[in-house]
Amino acid sequence: MALNLKDYVASYPNFPEPGVTFRDISPLLEDGEAYRQATDEIVNYAKGKNVDMIVGPEARGFIVGCPVAYELGIGFAPARKKGKLPGKTVKATYGLEYGQSSLYLHEDAIKPGQRVLVTDDLLATGGTIEATIELVKDLGGIVVGTAFIVELMDLKGRDKIKDYDILSLIKYN
Amino acid sequence: MALNLKDYVASYPNFPEPGVTFRDISPLLEDGEAYRQATDEIVNYAKGKNVDMIVGPEARGFIVGCPVAYELGIGFAPARKKGKLPGKTVKATYGLEYGQSSLYLHEDAIKPGQRVLVTDDLLATGGTIEATIELVKDLGGIVVGTAFIVELMDLKGRDKIKDYDILSLIKYN
Repeated sequence: MALNLKDYVASYPNFPEPGVTFRDISPLLEDGEAYRQATDEIVNYAKGKNVDMIVGPEARGFIVGCPVAYELGIGFAPARKKGKLPGKTVKATYGLEYGQSSLYLHEDAIKPGQRVLVTDDLLATGGTIEATIELVKDLGGIVVGTAFIVELMDLKGRDKIKDYDILSLIKYN
Repeated sequence: MALNLKDYVASYPNFPEPGVTFRDISPLLEDGEAYRQATDEIVNYAKGKNVDMIVGPEARGFIVGCPVAYELGIGFAPARKKGKLPGKTVKATYGLEYGQSSLYLHEDAIKPGQRVLVTDDLLATGGTIEATIELVKDLGGIVVGTAFIVELMDLKGRDKIKDYDILSLIKYN
C-alpha cells in the first residue's frame, strides 16, 4: 500500500525567519520506502513525457532529480551557484527577498531539442525554478515538465511557471 | 561492454586557482549510460557491505549517493553546510586551505548501529569526508565504506581515512 508522503515531512515554524514555516523533506529522504515511492512517482511522470535529460538546481534539486535520471538511464545536469562550475556556462539571475542570486549551467549540458524535466524539492515562490527553466531554454532545451516533492500553494509559484506542466507530490496551503 | 569512465571526466587546469587541475564529473553525469554504470558499481559495492543508509556531503555527495540509496531502497541523509538544516543537528569542523568550514547532520538522521556508506564525487585531501564520517560516528552509526567517483592520489586523502574501506572508480596521480 502506498505511504502517505505527508507523514514524512517535518514542519519547523519560524525557520529560517519569523512567520515562515519550513517544510523539511529530510524524514522522507531518510526513509528508504518513502524516498523510493516519491522518486517512482516522478519517474512515472517523466516516462509519460519522454524525457531526455534532468536538470535540478543546487542542492536539493539534486536529491530529487538524480535518482530519477539513474532509473531512466538518462543524464543529470546540476544548475549551480556562482563559482562552482568550471568552463563555459550560461547564467540566470533571480530575485530573493533581499537582493538577487544567480544559477549557472554548463553551455554543453543540454543539446538543442532535448526534452528536459526540471526537478526541485519544493515549489515556493518559484524564483529558483524559473531561473533553472531559463537556463535550459537558453541552451535550446524543451522543458516538458517540472516536478517537486512539496508545493506551498499560498506562495503562488505555480503562477510564475504557468506555461509549464507541474507535478507536486505533497501540497500545503 | 563497460565504458571507460575516465573518458567522461573533464580536466580544467588552473581552476579554481593557479596550479590546481580541477577534475569535473559533469560529462559523466550528463551521459545517462556513464552515470548509470558509475552508480551501479557503487550499488554493487554497497550490497557487499549490507548498507542501511547513505550519507553524502553537500552538494556533489548528493549526486553520487542519492541514486545508490534509491536503487537499494534505503534512506539518504544529506550532510549540509551552516544554516541549511532546521532542528537539532550535530556538527563537525574541518580545515580548508584558508580557514575552516563545518558540516551538519540531523541528530535523528542515523540510528545507532546502522551501517552507513559515505559518498562523495571526489576524494582529494579528505577533509570533507573525514568530517562526514565524524558526524555519522557521533550519532552511533557504523561507517562500513566510502565511495567516490574520482580519487586524486597525490593529495593522499586515503591516508586521512585509512581506518575505512574505500572504493574509487577513477584514479589520477
